[in-house]
Amino acid sequence: MATLLIENLAEVATPQGTTVRAGAEQGRVARLHGAEVLCRDGRIAFVGSSEERHRRFGELPDVARLDGAGGTLVPGFVDPHTHLPWAGSREEEFAARLRGATYQEIAAQGGGILSTVGATRTASEEELATAMLPRLRRMLTCGTTTAEAKSGYGLSLADELKQLRAIQRASAAQPVTLVPTLLAAHEVPPELRHDRERFLALVCEEIVPAVAAAGLARFCDVFCEQGVFTAEESRQVLLAGRAHGLAPRLHADEFVDSGGAELAAEVGALSADHLMAVSEAGIEALAAAGVIATLLPGTSFFLMKHIYAPARRLVAAGVPVALATDCNPGSSNTESMPTILTLAVFELRLTVEEALTAATLNAACSLGLGAEIGSIEEGKRADLVLLDAPNLLHLAYHFGVNPVAAVVKEGRVVLRAAAPLV
Amino acid sequence: MATLLIENLAEVATPQGTTVRAGAEQGRVARLHGAEVLCRDGRIAFVGSSEERHRRFGELPDVARLDGAGGTLVPGFVDPHTHLPWAGSREEEFAARLRGATYQEIAAQGGGILSTVGATRTASEEELATAMLPRLRRMLTCGTTTAEAKSGYGLSLADELKQLRAIQRASAAQPVTLVPTLLAAHEVPPELRHDRERFLALVCEEIVPAVAAAGLARFCDVFCEQGVFTAEESRQVLLAGRAHGLAPRLHADEFVDSGGAELAAEVGALSADHLMAVSEAGIEALAAAGVIATLLPGTSFFLMKHIYAPARRLVAAGVPVALATDCNPGSSNTESMPTILTLAVFELRLTVEEALTAATLNAACSLGLGAEIGSIEEGKRADLVLLDAPNLLHLAYHFGVNPVAAVVKEGRVVLRAAAPLV
Repeated sequence: MATLLIENLAEVATPQGTTVRAGAEQGRVARLHGAEVLCRDGRIAFVGSSEERHRRFGELPDVARLDGAGGTLVPGFVDPHTHLPWAGSREEEFAARLRGATYQEIAAQGGGILSTVGATRTASEEELATAMLPRLRRMLTCGTTTAEAKSGYGLSLADELKQLRAIQRASAAQPVTLVPTLLAAHEVPPELRHDRERFLALVCEEIVPAVAAAGLARFCDVFCEQGVFTAEESRQVLLAGRAHGLAPRLHADEFVDSGGAELAAEVGALSADHLMAVSEAGIEALAAAGVIATLLPGTSFFLMKHIYAPARRLVAAGVPVALATDCNPGSSNTESMPTILTLAVFELRLTVEEALTAATLNAACSLGLGAEIGSIEEGKRADLVLLDAPNLLHLAYHFGVNPVAAVVKEGRVVLRAAAPLV
Repeated sequence: MATLLIENLAEVATPQGTTVRAGAEQGRVARLHGAEVLCRDGRIAFVGSSEERHRRFGELPDVARLDGAGGTLVPGFVDPHTHLPWAGSREEEFAARLRGATYQEIAAQGGGILSTVGATRTASEEELATAMLPRLRRMLTCGTTTAEAKSGYGLSLADELKQLRAIQRASAAQPVTLVPTLLAAHEVPPELRHDRERFLALVCEEIVPAVAAAGLARFCDVFCEQGVFTAEESRQVLLAGRAHGLAPRLHADEFVDSGGAELAAEVGALSADHLMAVSEAGIEALAAAGVIATLLPGTSFFLMKHIYAPARRLVAAGVPVALATDCNPGSSNTESMPTILTLAVFELRLTVEEALTAATLNAACSLGLGAEIGSIEEGKRADLVLLDAPNLLHLAYHFGVNPVAAVVKEGRVVLRAAAPLV
């Protein structure tokens, strides 16, 4: 595989290490000036001065070069919570919300998660994979090089398997690496609305084992929330997943404190996600158990409730914070990690450095990939983003525009931003 | 000049007419399905069905074609309030604000508007014009085809003239048309800090006449705000401008109700901008006088005060609403009108249709250009934006990603979005 040299950078900004950063460490980001980055065989071979690089590697006769053009290099963004494989679209529901309709009214008119379930069940595996491609292209355009992707719009054995296979297929078809999660317990499907027990048995005794046996998911997730699944039901699902080798992660305390954070701590979840309504006890439980808090400020923004997760209290309590898009058609229709970073700074009040760690190393760790990706260090996979920005602070300071000038995936330049034609 | 046919569009979405839309009219947007758009000699020659086009124009042997690819065509965005010609950067001040510093503390450390004034005074006209080019490129990338640009970081005769000449130079160098505004009364400069009278005399008796004589500005603006210029001082400046043919517009009631809206109505301003603190009496005055309210939600977002202009009350009162970026290095560092549209929907609670009118036709009218641009209708200038979106609603529903697939300026394709390399 070719060698790539990234030169003429104003700054290389990166968290460091292979494990989560929490508390004061969350904001400890290296900001290297005058550094080059050399990629070989898909890995980062070197980060440092030109002189040092010459000394260690000598001449590089066949090297490809990426001109940093005075920009800033950061690790490829890692998006650890998405619902990418969906069919249909829900903009009319969104427009109804703008006109003042409540979630209940929308659900009564056939909207909400179940409308996406209907469309997704109707779609073929190929149609689902194809529908993901423009989403993945936009992710790449916005600097994401690895993303988690959940099932959860199938809610039957066949349809959950179909979604997970579509994830596998879409991952292979383009540069963004997808990490699959089974979220069979996203909602109770219409046909089992009055027999929750049976649905839970289906999830725990049929879907989880089948998905694990097929090697189609790495994680098992559940929507633990008032009106969806109780903490007790969620525990069943997560333990069933764990028993089959699917590491637990969950939707916790999004709208109501449902004991989701405590459950995440109890079952040793890698990540507790949302947490807009997490309690003080929940925060302490997360901190004590070392669970990552994955915050999704795009969802708060999209739902227009002006309620955001208590990011500063989480950081203060020593809970490692990650960031994700929650990309989905009903509550956060965006693929952009820079947008999420911006919301994290302006609404969650993370510093830019804390937000960078949250969107790279901590996000990677929440997917069990901290040793592989999430920082710009020798030996890690060469997934990198060149920002059209003179330093890291511009990632939030210069808001609302896509700062991505180029994306490198496994040592290859896979995207460059458009230039005007005239 | 060549002929351009834009075909294969899912939707053409546009306000209609040449004058401002207010009240219920603000949200009345045509959404045409199955329409094509033909551009000739830089103008829109036709909007309608393929059959009708064939009937009226016959074969088009030398036509260039833009494949709409199932996207949505909207008018080029018009950004009617920017401070584009600046030197320097203020990300460290931004980082200090994130750490909790107040505006007063930042100003005491040499930050704030006066830090940009210092850098801008030091820069040459050519340096200022060059600094604007990447900003204008980002504007174009985000679909802006016409923007207002203010002076106001010079605060002396020579430096205000220099800024306005830089605007003229930058406008000629790339596709985005710039409309210049004199904002000499943006702040009292350090050297006249203790002699406001003398500065006001300088503005009214020297700068305004010189700028008007040189034909370097179309409008005269003033920062009417507690701690900056009083309503009485602002009136002097606006009347001096008006006497020299510079139409009035102003920064009104941004942080404190300073009677700015009433003053706008009194002097017949085209636009009263910001209005986060406008009073009920101010709203009534704007409505009665037909002054456009130009809202800048990016500024509210950037300042993290969670105070937004009362957009719904303005619409309800019959005040025509426009939207702008306020692009500047201290209080709203963004070039993106799609981002502003998104904030307008999610935070100001405009509908997507109202926001589109605000960002196109009403913005054009606030610059006196309603007959020329701001809608997709025969005879108007062919400034158009192709969105990678199946319908208009996606402009807000699909948030946080740049929806612009291509930009047409005066009938020519001047930008296409990047495609991944692999």
